[in-house]
Amino acid sequence: MDWEQVFATRAGRMKASEIRELLKLLEQPDIISFAGGIPDAALFPKAAVTEAYARVLDGDQAATALQYSVSEGYRPLREWIVGEMRALGIGCRAENVLITSGSQQVLDYLGKIFLSPKDTALVTWPTYLGALGAFNAYEPTYDRLTPLSNREAGSYREAAEKAGGRIKFAYCVPEFSNPTGETMTRAAREWLLDLASELDIAVVEDAAYQALRYDGESVPPVLALDIARNGGDIDKTRTLYCGSFSKTLAPGLRVGWVVAAEPVIRKLVLVKQAADLHSSTINQMVIGDVAASVFEAQVKRIRETYSARRDRMLSALDKAMPAGVEWSRPEGGMFVWMTLPKGMDGAALLARAIRDYRIAFVPGKAFHADGSGENTLRLSFSCASFQMIDEGISRLGDLVRREMVSSAA
Amino acid sequence: MDWEQVFATRAGRMKASEIRELLKLLEQPDIISFAGGIPDAALFPKAAVTEAYARVLDGDQAATALQYSVSEGYRPLREWIVGEMRALGIGCRAENVLITSGSQQVLDYLGKIFLSPKDTALVTWPTYLGALGAFNAYEPTYDRLTPLSNREAGSYREAAEKAGGRIKFAYCVPEFSNPTGETMTRAAREWLLDLASELDIAVVEDAAYQALRYDGESVPPVLALDIARNGGDIDKTRTLYCGSFSKTLAPGLRVGWVVAAEPVIRKLVLVKQAADLHSSTINQMVIGDVAASVFEAQVKRIRETYSARRDRMLSALDKAMPAGVEWSRPEGGMFVWMTLPKGMDGAALLARAIRDYRIAFVPGKAFHADGSGENTLRLSFSCASFQMIDEGISRLGDLVRREMVSSAA
Repeated sequence: MDWEQVFATRAGRMKASEIRELLKLLEQPDIISFAGGIPDAALFPKAAVTEAYARVLDGDQAATALQYSVSEGYRPLREWIVGEMRALGIGCRAENVLITSGSQQVLDYLGKIFLSPKDTALVTWPTYLGALGAFNAYEPTYDRLTPLSNREAGSYREAAEKAGGRIKFAYCVPEFSNPTGETMTRAAREWLLDLASELDIAVVEDAAYQALRYDGESVPPVLALDIARNGGDIDKTRTLYCGSFSKTLAPGLRVGWVVAAEPVIRKLVLVKQAADLHSSTINQMVIGDVAASVFEAQVKRIRETYSARRDRMLSALDKAMPAGVEWSRPEGGMFVWMTLPKGMDGAALLARAIRDYRIAFVPGKAFHADGSGENTLRLSFSCASFQMIDEGISRLGDLVRREMVSSAA
Repeated sequence: MDWEQVFATRAGRMKASEIRELLKLLEQPDIISFAGGIPDAALFPKAAVTEAYARVLDGDQAATALQYSVSEGYRPLREWIVGEMRALGIGCRAENVLITSGSQQVLDYLGKIFLSPKDTALVTWPTYLGALGAFNAYEPTYDRLTPLSNREAGSYREAAEKAGGRIKFAYCVPEFSNPTGETMTRAAREWLLDLASELDIAVVEDAAYQALRYDGESVPPVLALDIARNGGDIDKTRTLYCGSFSKTLAPGLRVGWVVAAEPVIRKLVLVKQAADLHSSTINQMVIGDVAASVFEAQVKRIRETYSARRDRMLSALDKAMPAGVEWSRPEGGMFVWMTLPKGMDGAALLARAIRDYRIAFVPGKAFHADGSGENTLRLSFSCASFQMIDEGISRLGDLVRREMVSSAA
């Protein structure tokens, strides 16, 4: 059977895979890599997780842990999440929470329930690569979300009609965004809700980095603002809040969640039931156990480590980078976003960086739904020691300076 | 936001949810239920699983177990599966194996890569409810797969064109099918491959119950026959074999797999990457550890228990059922399929069974893509003690006899 031909007839703009292939090449041991966007394994709460698996498998609850379970998710974990959400100003009940296999899975399900081919999804330029990967499977068009701009709802609507479909949702990572590290101001969030209300579309708030604030003033989640606009009633809101334990506890268990109006959750439960029945029962119980016992201490520990690495990277950049290069100063998360002078190409730079300087990063173009952003790149500090940061950023400065000179010549 | 209206515009024939809602109602403690299709929790290899989690979290590999991992799945587990597949006559390499979150997830991905709205999927009448649930999300039409019939490829093709699309695959559960318990003969499997070849479509072999043969002669998997037709080269085959640890080890870890030609696996890896990144790393490692140590002994234990229950149920049916009622005599799996005299209605019978006889089963209509099968029902013996079987089947006999008399009157 000619499988290549079969699949060629299906759309498959899988840009995420291309970039991940590249990341694999970067795993050579002498390379100082700022490319990966993963948490530092040294910070995983290994002891608490080990104890939790033993506890969950001890006695009568083992039969529950190893058996099929409901698609909505393990109720005590959903209730723990309700408590966390309330602390963020998101008043909700367990019926507003669905447990998923990482927050990536929610993005796939959102594509599934909202997007028909040629529909429009609004995303920022740049945006999270994995979101584009999840949505691409449903063959949408993208339009650019430009917070606090003067662009009016009518202009978005016209563009979507021209593309042959309707606008279905706006996707954003309001806190310490992947890839830019930047945070949407309260005014930008209110602008987004105004726009979404005019267009009558959903808002997808990807809050994967929510717990990783190191300084600056906290801003209410978009869902909290939406609830306030609706007299405190979450079931009247249009915002879907996607959370994850991957950045705080451990990604290997694949546990995330989504909080939204109950009709949305009911629909997502049906989608999940049809797609994979439910997320791992035992892992949900273990995450619930670990969260209840060590979540606060764990988050404190991660914040201390990552914020020191961020500080070190920002200092190193101040020292190493020539004038004309700009970068974000994130208040949390894992990433610094760099903008090189116009005309420079992050992908070409990466090739030289690996070959001549033994350093790596992710070129920014991949994060742009329109293929722009050639002169940008993403640096991750989550897994880098001070020594790696000092040495790697110094090399990056040398490389960029050399490229600027040669492109000026 | 009017969510109900938003979702009303998307197709959503979620019959699986309706039946599962019903099953929840049946969990009243004094009901003898043959409804659930789940493994007996008393048979889970609890000690081996507990030791495996402790082992996987001990020492350096804990960092791997708790971290993100590749979408293809944990390589040692894929290699263990290669060995198991070879023993079934399926010569393959690790590159032919993708680990998924249960075999249900493969069905969703198959819908995603193959089905556009109005395309046709061939399924048996009746078929696995969860497969219909997974495929329905992609809005296909169904046509009836009738093994060993004289129906020709042209007739299938015409029906698909009339429905407005193309035939994309044939789905079957060849061993101890859910819901009928029946097994496809070798001749039926060859017929299926002939038909698929004429139509140039894929074959999806759902092998969830493969390891649960209690007696009778084993039949080569469809994929093994397909490989033999292609000179031993799996990469030329059209069959996708979906396996699961849910019926042998434990469903709560959500680990299954798919074996197919390498181009199919490569495509599915991209789909999985976009949909949920990868299945739980730690659970894959634990399943690999448990499979390597106790798989054979575990399967032996399950077979002994379930086959004794099947025998008991068949004897009880012989004793209790009036003439005119027929049922399958499965050589493995978890289910007996019963056909009542024409005109009787399984759903109406269930209502009376719960109210007056305190017994439960699943009406067969839900398993039929065309809504037929009113006079059928599914009985599961996997979780029933001898006492439950004797008492429950005796009551079912009384009920059916009473109904036959009253419908004859």
